[in-house]
Amino acid sequence: GPVAAVVRELRCVCLSTTPGVHPKMVTNLQVIAAGPQCSKVEVVASLKNGKEVCLDPEAPLIKKIVQKILDGYLPL
Amino acid sequence: GPVAAVVRELRCVCLSTTPGVHPKMVTNLQVIAAGPQCSKVEVVASLKNGKEVCLDPEAPLIKKIVQKILDGYLPL
Repeated sequence: GPVAAVVRELRCVCLSTTPGVHPKMVTNLQVIAAGPQCSKVEVVASLKNGKEVCLDPEAPLIKKIVQKILDGYLPL
Repeated sequence: GPVAAVVRELRCVCLSTTPGVHPKMVTNLQVIAAGPQCSKVEVVASLKNGKEVCLDPEAPLIKKIVQKILDGYLPL
């Protein structure tokens, strides 16, 4: 898929973002600050189906997903 | 350190949490939903000094860090 190994890559990992990912699908969310390796913020979601997708950092969805995960409301 | 490879470990990755981590130190934040691998929510922060630490998911700090990263306010 478009997302290779995450975080320690010395470049941006997200080539495009996937809209409409439902919070219930997300098992793990990585919020990567802009930095030397990439000048933009990147958000990578690991999904229950094993896939990893990039989400739009601007989307209000991100805060909802983080909130749901932190509150443990996501069904197992 | 206490945190081994993250996410696909079939057990909890966080043995303890580190208080008082300053948002400016965080380059990457992983929010891991409770699931088959671990029955509790886990939050792993990668720091500018290369270390990885676990944060308390209950701490309001988490939302602040996510907010700051998403808003790109973190100095490079």
